[in-house]
Amino acid sequence: MQKYARIFESVRAVSPLVHQITNYVTVNDCANITLCIGASPVMSHAPEDVIDMAKIANAIVLNIGTLDPEQVEGMFVAGRVAADRNIPIILDPVGTGATPYRTKTAQQLIDELPISVIKGNAGEIGTLRGVVASVRGVDSGGVVGDRKTIVKSLAVEFGCVVIMSGEEDLISDGSRIVGVSNGVPMMGKLSGTGCMVSAVIAAFTAVASDTMDGCIAAMASFGIAGEIATETSVGPGSFKSAFFDAISALTSEQIIDRARITEY
Amino acid sequence: MQKYARIFESVRAVSPLVHQITNYVTVNDCANITLCIGASPVMSHAPEDVIDMAKIANAIVLNIGTLDPEQVEGMFVAGRVAADRNIPIILDPVGTGATPYRTKTAQQLIDELPISVIKGNAGEIGTLRGVVASVRGVDSGGVVGDRKTIVKSLAVEFGCVVIMSGEEDLISDGSRIVGVSNGVPMMGKLSGTGCMVSAVIAAFTAVASDTMDGCIAAMASFGIAGEIATETSVGPGSFKSAFFDAISALTSEQIIDRARITEY
Amino acid sequence: MQKYARIFESVRAVSPLVHQITNYVTVNDCANITLCIGASPVMSHAPEDVIDMAKIANAIVLNIGTLDPEQVEGMFVAGRVAADRNIPIILDPVGTGATPYRTKTAQQLIDELPISVIKGNAGEIGTLRGVVASVRGVDSGGVVGDRKTIVKSLAVEFGCVVIMSGEEDLISDGSRIVGVSNGVPMMGKLSGTGCMVSAVIAAFTAVASDTMDGCIAAMASFGIAGEIATETSVGPGSFKSAFFDAISALTSEQIIDRARITEY
Repeated sequence: MQKYARIFESVRAVSPLVHQITNYVTVNDCANITLCIGASPVMSHAPEDVIDMAKIANAIVLNIGTLDPEQVEGMFVAGRVAADRNIPIILDPVGTGATPYRTKTAQQLIDELPISVIKGNAGEIGTLRGVVASVRGVDSGGVVGDRKTIVKSLAVEFGCVVIMSGEEDLISDGSRIVGVSNGVPMMGKLSGTGCMVSAVIAAFTAVASDTMDGCIAAMASFGIAGEIATETSVGPGSFKSAFFDAISALTSEQIIDRARITEY
Repeated sequence: MQKYARIFESVRAVSPLVHQITNYVTVNDCANITLCIGASPVMSHAPEDVIDMAKIANAIVLNIGTLDPEQVEGMFVAGRVAADRNIPIILDPVGTGATPYRTKTAQQLIDELPISVIKGNAGEIGTLRGVVASVRGVDSGGVVGDRKTIVKSLAVEFGCVVIMSGEEDLISDGSRIVGVSNGVPMMGKLSGTGCMVSAVIAAFTAVASDTMDGCIAAMASFGIAGEIATETSVGPGSFKSAFFDAISALTSEQIIDRARITEY
Repeated sequence: MQKYARIFESVRAVSPLVHQITNYVTVNDCANITLCIGASPVMSHAPEDVIDMAKIANAIVLNIGTLDPEQVEGMFVAGRVAADRNIPIILDPVGTGATPYRTKTAQQLIDELPISVIKGNAGEIGTLRGVVASVRGVDSGGVVGDRKTIVKSLAVEFGCVVIMSGEEDLISDGSRIVGVSNGVPMMGKLSGTGCMVSAVIAAFTAVASDTMDGCIAAMASFGIAGEIATETSVGPGSFKSAFFDAISALTSEQIIDRARITEY
């Protein structure tokens, strides 16, 4: 667990700049979680602006939660800058499988950019893998088949780290498969936890020497903060406040003590 | 009150998918309130995406709070799909009366789409009725004339349910007129309560056999949660957290005990 | 301090309408802070809508935090209406210095509109002054040179009030230089405090006979609310709730007792 805690400490020490092209639903939460984990957020989507912002970023997040053509163009422009600069590109394919436009856009982003991490729920990841999956709006309806096999084979196919979120998050870089079991059901009752964790993944992979390790540390840290927040909250409203407090006060000791990570 | 409580229970049981084309100011609150009431939110505005999202939705919300031509085009596209599929279309004509662009857009949406419910404050509803009304930005400045008559006649004219929000919400489908007196003044001090209730109305009408009953149940449930939230809050910030907690923990018993519904 | 408290009381009495063309990251917080201080917010960005909204506003905010060409066009259109009507125009040049598009847009807005107040961090203000400054995303990296001299000379050059936010906020109208030392470090750990204060400045300058005095009163009031909020919060999440509560409950007595204002 020590190595994961050290990545967390690096985020705090380095404060990587995370450029996020993301949806307007959860963008405020993404900005705040980025600050709380110790990194620095910047949001910018216009093709006129993203080149120069991506030039100074340490990682970028592409989240298609409320995509439109102008924003997607901004993602490709920023993504090419990120590719040239060899910084992590995190793709959150929100709602892939729910509409053809989302599915097609996610696939084009994967085809044309050297994505570092794809993070989605079972339905989204299953759709990208081409297996039977169901997505209802932006909620996962599940996937047919062995989840570990799907994640690993997708990681091999796309040459990146793939994260399928769920009760146990499954993470693979094509060779390792790791499960992270931190987190609480309340996180599913709050809009934006999926988007927020992508911002945290970006912050961790920006400073980690190994992208897979950065993803594991990010998923565990995020889930642990959720566990701590439930201790002092009674519903989604008070949970949200407590969650930002918890992730802001998170310590290496908490990560070492509480991380539930399984190497398969 | 039993029938209203049963509609609430249906929302929890069915978890209808509510597709929302809405403003970027309060969109996060709309997503969270939809989750808290037991439904599932999805936000999507681009004409490229909305057809397929509206195809899987159980109700749609059209909220013109921060309208622009692209978004309005998305509303018409999604609205026509919703019309074909016969799912409820909720119109929240935010700021109608404040600018000609808002008034014209609201009228066009009403003219071209089979709107199920129009929910606005006195100034907005009065403007749509063509009576003397005043709107200041997105705040109601009041309306001249008998409020009940205005609501009922507008419902007859447009062939839909009309809700004029206020200290007592007035609801009419053109034959019945019902008042709902739940709620607290604090709800007027928090941005987004008007938008949030439209999302809740969409969730309730998606599962109700009678649209008018769905609206009554929604307005009462929303107001009751507000009343409960004031018991543990001291200002708009703590009220917001407590409100999400309260609506998430709302029970049929609370609705039956606390609903203040008057049939006129 | 009496005169600053009286401006605050005027905001509560008059409830000025503050039209905000702003970023989608912190827009909900800006709407809520405007309500909490006692004013009325309205957000509208489309060129089709802004003329009529600016016609009824008492002040406008132009915040380039997530600018794009359509929004910038809306800023110019609204700004010209505001200029004709002689209402305060507040410019928040978010991220100026971080990208050429932001710097160029801020400069064009200043060149073409009679801006009343420019409020930025050291990096943003320094960039506009043409001194050596650094901006990292939307965070200030500091500025080379005497801060007071920079603020005053920029105020002279642009003929408006200039505010450089920081541990001590520096405010100048070209003749006076005033420092405001209210506020707490926690405000830097919450996304949107910089945007929110611009909304508060707009509300205060809308009712103040002297723009500089309105800015001083706004900065002090905002900082005092932050100080009060830290007394009952443990992290950024609980601080945010407490901050809205505190600014909503703010009194003239608190302003008189706690304002730390230095005339240089």
